[in-house]
Amino acid sequence: MTEENYRIESDTIGPVKIPKDALWGPQTERSRNNFPSGELMPLAIIRAFLHLKKAAAESNVEVGDETQEKGAAIEDAIDHLLALSDEDLRKDFPLHVLQTGSGTQSNMNVNEVVANLANKLHPGLGILPNDDVNRGQSSNDTYPTVMNIVAIEALDQLEPAIQHLIDELVVKEKKYWKTVKIGRTHLQDATPLTFGQELSGYISALKHDLSYIQSLKPTLYELAIGGTAVGTGLNASPGMTEKIAGKLSEVYGHKFIVETNKFWGLAHHSGLNVVHGALKTLASDMFKIAQDIRMLASGPRAGYGELNIPANEPGSSIMPGKVNPTQAEAVTMACAKVFGNDTTITFASSQGNFELNVFKTVMIASFLDSCNILTGVITGFADRMIHGLTVNKDRMNELLDNSLMTVTALSPHIGYHAAAKIAQAAQREGTTLREAALKSGKVTEEQYDKWMDYMQMTNVDKHEPEE
Amino acid sequence: MTEENYRIESDTIGPVKIPKDALWGPQTERSRNNFPSGELMPLAIIRAFLHLKKAAAESNVEVGDETQEKGAAIEDAIDHLLALSDEDLRKDFPLHVLQTGSGTQSNMNVNEVVANLANKLHPGLGILPNDDVNRGQSSNDTYPTVMNIVAIEALDQLEPAIQHLIDELVVKEKKYWKTVKIGRTHLQDATPLTFGQELSGYISALKHDLSYIQSLKPTLYELAIGGTAVGTGLNASPGMTEKIAGKLSEVYGHKFIVETNKFWGLAHHSGLNVVHGALKTLASDMFKIAQDIRMLASGPRAGYGELNIPANEPGSSIMPGKVNPTQAEAVTMACAKVFGNDTTITFASSQGNFELNVFKTVMIASFLDSCNILTGVITGFADRMIHGLTVNKDRMNELLDNSLMTVTALSPHIGYHAAAKIAQAAQREGTTLREAALKSGKVTEEQYDKWMDYMQMTNVDKHEPEE
Amino acid sequence: MTEENYRIESDTIGPVKIPKDALWGPQTERSRNNFPSGELMPLAIIRAFLHLKKAAAESNVEVGDETQEKGAAIEDAIDHLLALSDEDLRKDFPLHVLQTGSGTQSNMNVNEVVANLANKLHPGLGILPNDDVNRGQSSNDTYPTVMNIVAIEALDQLEPAIQHLIDELVVKEKKYWKTVKIGRTHLQDATPLTFGQELSGYISALKHDLSYIQSLKPTLYELAIGGTAVGTGLNASPGMTEKIAGKLSEVYGHKFIVETNKFWGLAHHSGLNVVHGALKTLASDMFKIAQDIRMLASGPRAGYGELNIPANEPGSSIMPGKVNPTQAEAVTMACAKVFGNDTTITFASSQGNFELNVFKTVMIASFLDSCNILTGVITGFADRMIHGLTVNKDRMNELLDNSLMTVTALSPHIGYHAAAKIAQAAQREGTTLREAALKSGKVTEEQYDKWMDYMQMTNVDKHEPEE
Amino acid sequence: MTEENYRIESDTIGPVKIPKDALWGPQTERSRNNFPSGELMPLAIIRAFLHLKKAAAESNVEVGDETQEKGAAIEDAIDHLLALSDEDLRKDFPLHVLQTGSGTQSNMNVNEVVANLANKLHPGLGILPNDDVNRGQSSNDTYPTVMNIVAIEALDQLEPAIQHLIDELVVKEKKYWKTVKIGRTHLQDATPLTFGQELSGYISALKHDLSYIQSLKPTLYELAIGGTAVGTGLNASPGMTEKIAGKLSEVYGHKFIVETNKFWGLAHHSGLNVVHGALKTLASDMFKIAQDIRMLASGPRAGYGELNIPANEPGSSIMPGKVNPTQAEAVTMACAKVFGNDTTITFASSQGNFELNVFKTVMIASFLDSCNILTGVITGFADRMIHGLTVNKDRMNELLDNSLMTVTALSPHIGYHAAAKIAQAAQREGTTLREAALKSGKVTEEQYDKWMDYMQMTNVDKHEPEE
Repeated sequence: MTEENYRIESDTIGPVKIPKDALWGPQTERSRNNFPSGELMPLAIIRAFLHLKKAAAESNVEVGDETQEKGAAIEDAIDHLLALSDEDLRKDFPLHVLQTGSGTQSNMNVNEVVANLANKLHPGLGILPNDDVNRGQSSNDTYPTVMNIVAIEALDQLEPAIQHLIDELVVKEKKYWKTVKIGRTHLQDATPLTFGQELSGYISALKHDLSYIQSLKPTLYELAIGGTAVGTGLNASPGMTEKIAGKLSEVYGHKFIVETNKFWGLAHHSGLNVVHGALKTLASDMFKIAQDIRMLASGPRAGYGELNIPANEPGSSIMPGKVNPTQAEAVTMACAKVFGNDTTITFASSQGNFELNVFKTVMIASFLDSCNILTGVITGFADRMIHGLTVNKDRMNELLDNSLMTVTALSPHIGYHAAAKIAQAAQREGTTLREAALKSGKVTEEQYDKWMDYMQMTNVDKHEPEE
Repeated sequence: MTEENYRIESDTIGPVKIPKDALWGPQTERSRNNFPSGELMPLAIIRAFLHLKKAAAESNVEVGDETQEKGAAIEDAIDHLLALSDEDLRKDFPLHVLQTGSGTQSNMNVNEVVANLANKLHPGLGILPNDDVNRGQSSNDTYPTVMNIVAIEALDQLEPAIQHLIDELVVKEKKYWKTVKIGRTHLQDATPLTFGQELSGYISALKHDLSYIQSLKPTLYELAIGGTAVGTGLNASPGMTEKIAGKLSEVYGHKFIVETNKFWGLAHHSGLNVVHGALKTLASDMFKIAQDIRMLASGPRAGYGELNIPANEPGSSIMPGKVNPTQAEAVTMACAKVFGNDTTITFASSQGNFELNVFKTVMIASFLDSCNILTGVITGFADRMIHGLTVNKDRMNELLDNSLMTVTALSPHIGYHAAAKIAQAAQREGTTLREAALKSGKVTEEQYDKWMDYMQMTNVDKHEPEE
Repeated sequence: MTEENYRIESDTIGPVKIPKDALWGPQTERSRNNFPSGELMPLAIIRAFLHLKKAAAESNVEVGDETQEKGAAIEDAIDHLLALSDEDLRKDFPLHVLQTGSGTQSNMNVNEVVANLANKLHPGLGILPNDDVNRGQSSNDTYPTVMNIVAIEALDQLEPAIQHLIDELVVKEKKYWKTVKIGRTHLQDATPLTFGQELSGYISALKHDLSYIQSLKPTLYELAIGGTAVGTGLNASPGMTEKIAGKLSEVYGHKFIVETNKFWGLAHHSGLNVVHGALKTLASDMFKIAQDIRMLASGPRAGYGELNIPANEPGSSIMPGKVNPTQAEAVTMACAKVFGNDTTITFASSQGNFELNVFKTVMIASFLDSCNILTGVITGFADRMIHGLTVNKDRMNELLDNSLMTVTALSPHIGYHAAAKIAQAAQREGTTLREAALKSGKVTEEQYDKWMDYMQMTNVDKHEPEE
Repeated sequence: MTEENYRIESDTIGPVKIPKDALWGPQTERSRNNFPSGELMPLAIIRAFLHLKKAAAESNVEVGDETQEKGAAIEDAIDHLLALSDEDLRKDFPLHVLQTGSGTQSNMNVNEVVANLANKLHPGLGILPNDDVNRGQSSNDTYPTVMNIVAIEALDQLEPAIQHLIDELVVKEKKYWKTVKIGRTHLQDATPLTFGQELSGYISALKHDLSYIQSLKPTLYELAIGGTAVGTGLNASPGMTEKIAGKLSEVYGHKFIVETNKFWGLAHHSGLNVVHGALKTLASDMFKIAQDIRMLASGPRAGYGELNIPANEPGSSIMPGKVNPTQAEAVTMACAKVFGNDTTITFASSQGNFELNVFKTVMIASFLDSCNILTGVITGFADRMIHGLTVNKDRMNELLDNSLMTVTALSPHIGYHAAAKIAQAAQREGTTLREAALKSGKVTEEQYDKWMDYMQMTNVDKHEPEE
């Protein structure tokens, strides 16, 4: 760009050339130049910052640290920004996740844009980024406050997605509650169960995972705001913090807490770390579920073939007519990513020093990524995989009838050893279990048919479906 | 060994040569030969298995599935085994963690040893490993039951160790509640706080970590027992499971639950996974704490030098008189191991198929390792590092007096920009902040001395110490 | 959108509504709707795909499987696409990383866009996505081919970035080759070395890391192309593969190999996995280097204070005049991300089944992310941290003169035990080492001064700087 | 123990009570008490230390730093120790991995035991642990030297185990080179290949993994010895290091290198880190291979059923006659552990500070664990899984004949779209592909039979088996 496209502005380090029409100021511009790589700071973080700055401005006015006029101008600017579309908002917030680890430069990006816009909308007030928009605050307490807020928002999206998948599974569970099929352990044929029972295990897993998230989530309500630079709250006026928390609770519909130990709040991120522990647990369970479904649907002719999955798209560019379990693949790949994010977050969380952890921006970006992709793939899996799932009853019956492991039902009557001999004979001689059992002389035809009741073996009548 | 040192015994696969005096039988012997590598199955798992088998034998008698005589003989054998020292017990339980992933062979090891010993002590009853000791059970429900039990036992050890460290920290926190020192963010000098406040952050972290563990622990009370082979409970008599849970609850002093979804209980290990998520969170926090302490104790002359740590041993084989923060190093290394165990457990937990997860033995061994080493290093850190810790007040004062970042206290009065200029001038000219401030003409001597009150900057009077 | 904004097009599954002006076809449209979450498929992958399709089209013509006219039309369309800016190219390639794990839909996106554009530019030829653009190919061999190509391209960027950092470090190493300073082990004072020697360790680490990457990189030259659907090469004409490899080698300036075992090439990604093992090693070393630099620059007054780092931006929104080691923070956060990517890639690489690994898209996206952010932060660290680094010689001298661990030089003369007593006495009594040594009666003044030659202790004259 | 069971001995910190007959001294005793948890220091490390100390003693004599008598006594003591069984050796080396991170206390354990034993065997020489056995050395250069040595020894075991598995696979590959079977991608039926081709992919993977290890291994030949305390080599005489390396090269049969940058050697462990990157790659590939085998052997009647695996032991405690893929399970669990060790090592490797990395003991213990368990399970998998593997040809043929994806061979003749319609019709109507193809009118009977040649589709004649 030529010189006329720039303006010169100074911060405490010195003068900086800034694109003429940019709302941001010198500190944002420095960061833009000094940190050009990787992904952009998520807009969810910017929006939460704006809500926080608005609450802070109001609170500063209420405790008498800021004038009504300035406070109103700041709020007005923020309301303008909050009304922007993502695409438009991005234009003012060009910084990257990989910057200073405290997120200072994104805090300053917000301070500068709000101050400049407030001055534009309300000329003559001389609103300053540090002294006014950042009044009584520090990056060190605002950024972790915003981290918790956006994490909660993202969980607010994830939880109903999990519940939605549970609901879709419950529909199938009830429908197939008495559809008997062969069980498998070690990938080897085992004793029977119903498909509904199999699904009930998935539902139980997801209900547990949801409950873990919900029981841990309140640790994120504890906000760092009010700690300012090192946790002592220097330069924050008494009462300001409680007011901010009250206002944010109204905006977000969650009851935020400010009686947090601020030294912990700035330097540890135990809350995000442990909640992500629940997310990786969810990912482990989702992996297992998606893997099961695609294996049960393997075939259509040379696999297990017990399930029919929706044909959402042609499966192959070269093999005509192929159908693939693509939604399950997106799920399992997302899980691999969540596991990676967990490594990042665990490591990052361990590396705080003294009064601050400076891995904040990578930690929250990874946390958000996990929430967002889990929400996405779980929803897709519910709607485009489970919803249209049907069973292939003939195949289930055929596999069950051929099975040898139903011999287990004879054990209590003839002993484990004799039962094993029957199963081995059937396999060796390629006969049915019935033939081998009768041939063994250990059971009569009548006994065999009485004991070999598949449905009774499942004990399905003794339990209710998971809801 | 020569032939006379062996006996021949058969299982359903065929005959096996077994060391003559071994209490174990053919299935154990097969596993011993087929799986010779890695660590041994932890004895904690064997002991829990024995308690479970005893409860099962009693329950089988009570529900009428087993005779009084056989039941009593089984219990007698188990009592003999439980009374053995670790060293003696190990002789009968030689199997490794890396075996079949369901732990079947360790279940059979227990079944065989108990049956053989019972038959020795009570000849003529003909007690069988599968039909009697394993009656109404499967490896697939007993092994995960035992996993949860030993995990709970290990947490029962860890929790008081955490509390003990909290207690030691609280002693120091209160002692140094008003010992002012410089704060540090980004490793750079920041505004003051007290050493007690700094410690309060650690205490808060550990209290959070303890609460995470305690809030998640109940998920481990849900036992898989009663599911038998695939979760349906085939061959387990009605009522047997509830009786077992009742007996185990008495033995362990925890209220176990059997209304578990057994399909989930056999094939997912969400509970262990999420609780280990809390352990890795604890490890992240412990890493930060241990790292802080060793950095603050760095020196004695060319480091931060704020803390004096106990000289537990000569620090160097070559450098005479050296003292090293060795307890902190054991902590941080243990944390690195816990992070590794978390990767193992997350991955293992994702790899269940259908009715069973066959990564059980590696999962619980990793979980126990994390608990045990955390318990060990946290105790050592409390007793041999924190207990004897003292502060170097002269050094703290010296560093604080030299600091420039106390200039932050001037910002509300003269503005961020002017304050920055003062700090920069002091650094550039090598003067004290006071000199630079007065020279700037922005503050009077009286103002400076009033605003520059370190203790007031800490706001320490507004809060109570963590307890 | 209203109906008139769409056109209807069919694939083998049925009709699909597609935005009227979109160059893509029904399979892309299905994927766009079915997989809406997470990051977009990197454009580097699209561009490599275009080069591959062009090489394939040419080769198909040469072996006689495709007409000259169609081949030329396909090439023309690709040239048009390759000439587009990233922003414009993105408009035609809207799919996400989280789709089918084989990348089939991105392959089809390319096939559809190229076919449609070719038909637009050269009406009447009736070029088909599957039969023409994808001729003799499958997603299963093209996608892994593209993975290797973009990985190599990304390494081609990373390697000079590492070399650039080495070069910047060498400048400082030579400048400070004889600047003596105190060494530190366990964070505790140790025997002296020069700052140049300290830097030589970093240089050596980076040289090793670079050599690991370079020695492993050739495994990525082995391309999967020619394997088609399952590795057998069904439907690929003889000679076609060698021609493609030749053309790609010319485009990329690397000698690609096609004598690859294709079954391995489709189902394992050992190459990407092991090369990322070198990237995580680089990240571990970069973490250590960045951490050292920021610790040595800690202060300016209450830390180690040995180094002065460039003030790239104001460090704090609340603390005026603060300078933070922000480039080092971006480095260490990027490392945390690389560690996470390594977990993802390791896991993903283990989950192939039979003839295909369907974690391809997440694997390559994670690999690219690591390369790109490492390239970015290493460049920034070289240019904005190391380039402007200076040492604080007075501080280095002061710390060295105060040190006690130089006592080690007395050990060979008076023994480890006597030397330890001297160091302990000095520390206990707050004297210099010299005073304590003379007072001990173990050394004369003359001996002390002869033996206590810091520069000689460093042995710096016996070695050459790293280059 | 009562008082008479102890002796009192002093180190530079003060007096210590030591078990009367222990060969170790006060520093070992302190560590034994201060670090009681976790696994014991592997004896492989102790043995390597003894070899190193012997080489150092000889070298010290040769360069004139030590007397012949003392040198000979030290060597004599070491020879005695090296001749001990593991069980006996352990009695003198009771320390744990979780101690100081530099391994100083294990170095001192060796120094103390060797000195005491030398004095016992050769009274009157007054050999001292630090001044004699540790002469010219530090923990900081000896421990990393030993790390590399034991890592190389462990790799020396692993490499032939990999080659052994390759050899077993090659036998089967050749045997089944022309055994046609159905291919599977996305777990769904795909075009045919031979079982030999499938195995060739595994062989290729293992050959790649072996080559990665072999190409990276030389980085471990670079020894840190000679760096002493901080890398400068203070107190090590000229020439001593080269002599040590020469002697160790003879003992171990590898050409060790001492022109290492010692600052890197003490503070980074890039070599171990990157080599473990190759081990995790091997683990990823082994996971895939073991997973494939157990899935192909799934059944016997309700799974893929293509392979028959050896019945090494009864598979279930409750299900009579069950056979499980237990060797595959040990493999996959070992892989999960290797992935965890990789996390530990990566993290540990990143946490060096200044002149030393103090995560050495956990790093090498994790590395050894990976090597040892991989060696164990790979050997077991080769001998007890692959060696006895047979194929079920009838089943392979049946699945192939039923398959629809062989329709791919029609695409070049009738186009992708028409071919897809045929496959869809066959699946919809439950007919064979042949029936559907003829019914479509797109192919004649003659054409169909000519194009539908399974063996030709595999192109197996165009390639040689992997060796």
